[in-house]
Amino acid sequence: MNCFILNRENEVYYECGYSNDNCIFLSIDGEKYLITDGRYTLEAKEEANAEVVEEKNILKKAREIILKKRVKKLIIDPLNWSKEEYDFLKKAVTLKDVKNYSHKKRMIKKENELEIIKEAAKLGAEAFNKFAKNIETGIDEYELSYRFKEKLTMRCRRELSFEPIVAINENAAKPHAKLTDKILHKNDLLLLDAGIKYKRYCSDRTRTVAINENISMSKFQKFKNKEMQKIYDIVLKAQLEAIKKIKIGEKISTLDKTAREIIEKAGYGKYFVHSLGHGVGLDIHEWPYVNSKNDILIQEGMVFTVEPGIYLPGVFGVRIEDMVLIDYDGQVHVLSEEI
Amino acid sequence: MNCFILNRENEVYYECGYSNDNCIFLSIDGEKYLITDGRYTLEAKEEANAEVVEEKNILKKAREIILKKRVKKLIIDPLNWSKEEYDFLKKAVTLKDVKNYSHKKRMIKKENELEIIKEAAKLGAEAFNKFAKNIETGIDEYELSYRFKEKLTMRCRRELSFEPIVAINENAAKPHAKLTDKILHKNDLLLLDAGIKYKRYCSDRTRTVAINENISMSKFQKFKNKEMQKIYDIVLKAQLEAIKKIKIGEKISTLDKTAREIIEKAGYGKYFVHSLGHGVGLDIHEWPYVNSKNDILIQEGMVFTVEPGIYLPGVFGVRIEDMVLIDYDGQVHVLSEEI
Repeated sequence: MNCFILNRENEVYYECGYSNDNCIFLSIDGEKYLITDGRYTLEAKEEANAEVVEEKNILKKAREIILKKRVKKLIIDPLNWSKEEYDFLKKAVTLKDVKNYSHKKRMIKKENELEIIKEAAKLGAEAFNKFAKNIETGIDEYELSYRFKEKLTMRCRRELSFEPIVAINENAAKPHAKLTDKILHKNDLLLLDAGIKYKRYCSDRTRTVAINENISMSKFQKFKNKEMQKIYDIVLKAQLEAIKKIKIGEKISTLDKTAREIIEKAGYGKYFVHSLGHGVGLDIHEWPYVNSKNDILIQEGMVFTVEPGIYLPGVFGVRIEDMVLIDYDGQVHVLSEEI
Repeated sequence: MNCFILNRENEVYYECGYSNDNCIFLSIDGEKYLITDGRYTLEAKEEANAEVVEEKNILKKAREIILKKRVKKLIIDPLNWSKEEYDFLKKAVTLKDVKNYSHKKRMIKKENELEIIKEAAKLGAEAFNKFAKNIETGIDEYELSYRFKEKLTMRCRRELSFEPIVAINENAAKPHAKLTDKILHKNDLLLLDAGIKYKRYCSDRTRTVAINENISMSKFQKFKNKEMQKIYDIVLKAQLEAIKKIKIGEKISTLDKTAREIIEKAGYGKYFVHSLGHGVGLDIHEWPYVNSKNDILIQEGMVFTVEPGIYLPGVFGVRIEDMVLIDYDGQVHVLSEEI
């Protein structure tokens, strides 16, 4: 008897093609239940590949079904349920803790998921290019962000993967910069990190661009400032070399180590303050994490980012990020690297 | 010895004037600790009214401090911590479960919070008025939402309290409508539910407006369609009568019952599918909840919404929402009702 319970939106969506902000998914030996409240019953019935159960208190209803179906053991992710909810369920059934239960399932994408992700990356990259024509000196980060989001969301027709990062010069030295009223000038450096959702799957991309006559989203940038160019070229080399190491059966940690070694050798190791990347799918951050400790082997169906960075506090920061996808022929695709 | 631990962004902000998406707040007999990772140390030290502790694994660091300070008993909200995190802390200290610990503290606002909330409501209402001039027939809900968000966020200079609801006619019959490509026509009904953040405090407001010659955000609307006008007038009466009942010492449930009775008597009881309102502050939904079961007494410093609605599936829906604030003279203020 294989039984599990989920409460996270993307995890529920993955199982039954539908979810909302107040639902629980139960799988009992292949029988699927989607429990939600009355506000969502209609759309749930139309969209969910599961038996839809309407109830105000969804957790209580889940327990009822568990008892009725005489579930003996229920798989649960102890990272996703509050102490209170967990204890409530525990009174009805033996819980079997499996951390990252859904992340593990979702790490290897199916063919159709890979197709959707490719399209998401393409649409995201196209928005970067459209925005390139809208960048002007004399406007601030807020306005730049506003114009960028217009292109990314197609005026609210599409959702963002996350709030875009738009950061000029020293603001780009903060990996998680907030918007400010800093004005863009000629020869500045502009860091852009953004993604969109297509059929609920995320895209994720970072470009660091030179504000010169021909603003472009290419990875090959020409900065007037020599230090900017030097740092940019180190980050680019680190990214390209890490990407070269990607092949079926390679440890994913090798990628982080490769990029880190290049940056360290150039003398900027302590300014590469985060890991190399993360999986992307329904969640913007999911398995596999690309860091120096994760020795998982690269496999068909994985999608993850490669995004080294160097951040010089108070001066500027550079990050270059692409999504990489491994298809079922073992081919490595850097998604919409140049478009 | 009074010790508690918090992990939610707004709860942490309330205690020390700073928070981010990866921090823990610890209060040990009046000593305050803000534990966060290296990405945020600089801004945390500038802004937090607490000792800032930098650590990659913030939960482990919290446990370390708890052990070092020989904390005997730690108050924790079992609704806010995962099973995993809770068990990790339990190994170090006796945990005392207090559900909604921070919600209870934050329910009664201080004078300065009331001032900020008044301003938030004013700015939010002003954005509604600016948007009124941008509404055009022939455009769809996506475009309407895009234009509305431009005004609400001042082109990315301000954050939203939540994703605005913009719904035409039958789409307005879904209390949580998603945007569609439905086009706005003359004599349509348009439901708008939105709020902005000012100094981190939320505003929240709903208007249901008639698309006629003079589109206005007034609560006094003239619909050409007689059924729309009839339903609108019932909802408006329910809202105004519920507001009239607000006074210090009254049960908050009385408000819900008052509005519900009016709607029931008019024959639409089963179409008022949610409770009357909710508290507003740092969280868009917080204590006190305004429903028929919550018998808490109305007190100075409370802020909550009054938002009855009638939703006729497949036809249209009406909701009218204002924030109400009780000041320290016991005066009831309907915030930016007409502006």
